[in-house]
Amino acid sequence: MVHKIQQGRLILASNSPRRRYLLSRAGLHFEVIPSTVDETAMVFEDPASFTQALSRAKAEEVAAGHPDAWVIGADTIVVIDGTVLGKPKGMEAARTMLRQLSGQTHQVYTGYTICCVGLNQHFTDAVCTAVTFKTLSAEEIEWYIHTDEPFDKAGAYAIQGLGTFLVQRINGSYTNVVGLPVCEVIAYLIQAGVVQLREGGA
Amino acid sequence: MVHKIQQGRLILASNSPRRRYLLSRAGLHFEVIPSTVDETAMVFEDPASFTQALSRAKAEEVAAGHPDAWVIGADTIVVIDGTVLGKPKGMEAARTMLRQLSGQTHQVYTGYTICCVGLNQHFTDAVCTAVTFKTLSAEEIEWYIHTDEPFDKAGAYAIQGLGTFLVQRINGSYTNVVGLPVCEVIAYLIQAGVVQLREGGA
Repeated sequence: MVHKIQQGRLILASNSPRRRYLLSRAGLHFEVIPSTVDETAMVFEDPASFTQALSRAKAEEVAAGHPDAWVIGADTIVVIDGTVLGKPKGMEAARTMLRQLSGQTHQVYTGYTICCVGLNQHFTDAVCTAVTFKTLSAEEIEWYIHTDEPFDKAGAYAIQGLGTFLVQRINGSYTNVVGLPVCEVIAYLIQAGVVQLREGGA
Repeated sequence: MVHKIQQGRLILASNSPRRRYLLSRAGLHFEVIPSTVDETAMVFEDPASFTQALSRAKAEEVAAGHPDAWVIGADTIVVIDGTVLGKPKGMEAARTMLRQLSGQTHQVYTGYTICCVGLNQHFTDAVCTAVTFKTLSAEEIEWYIHTDEPFDKAGAYAIQGLGTFLVQRINGSYTNVVGLPVCEVIAYLIQAGVVQLREGGA
């Protein structure tokens, strides 16, 4: 059978291989032009506003140079008991984070912005997913740290990697935890006319 | 860094590429020996008991020929309003299922059995995850049907494929919807001593 996606020019303003994977798997075609926005320079209000502001800064920086394209920016953070967990700087930090997450429910926020400067279109939203870890033994934490997976991940884990074994349940969007709420992003792209789903024909 | 998994002989009694993917991604080594159990010959009681009974039949059929190995069997079904949705037999059946799931919450049950005949160990459980679809337009349903993805999937969708765009949120285990509750399976394998997580060393 024949199916296709008709779409405008799309840019992902992120270097994250996970976001690239999510969008590719959904059948979209896009270029990757990472933003150079300094994440640490942003002031923290509440998690949703923070990720939204950061996603907007990333998307608009790239969009300024490509006014004809639709640009997607995103930022994901892990929050437990009101504290934001960044990427762990070393084994001890990873150990501390995993101990804190063990047996508890935390929140993952992804703010995302979809904009097209030439059309004066700017959309920003944030999605929150609750993630519940199983209770981890000391051996499990040490083993996971030694896989090296925690070190470039906010909250010291990857739900789509070896870290699958850590996560008992989630409440909300799964792809949001990976790095981009795909259902919401594609719904916006369809509604805005950027993406048209067509079956049959050439 | 060095990490490894020490484990006994493990067999996956399922031909599902999705289950294979989930176990591989979790770092496990296993053989695949699909069972020949006839799924349609089972009597339906409630969804959890049904998937458990079927997973047990699959695992034990394969385990009988491999008494030294640990065998994993699993069965996944999609239930909406008390009705089980199987694999759609043709486009009209897929269309009907997707219309039924649109904008609604349904349940995905995976029953799984882990057994070792030689050690007289048999464990069976079932995990249920609630899955909420976004409201689908007629165009989205037609497009998705024409991707061919619905046809070998219970409930006519694949949460880990192009079907990602259909799913707004879930409540429970994500991997359970893909076909095997990885967190629970690995927790059992560790507890039973089949899998040992070791960091460092050779």
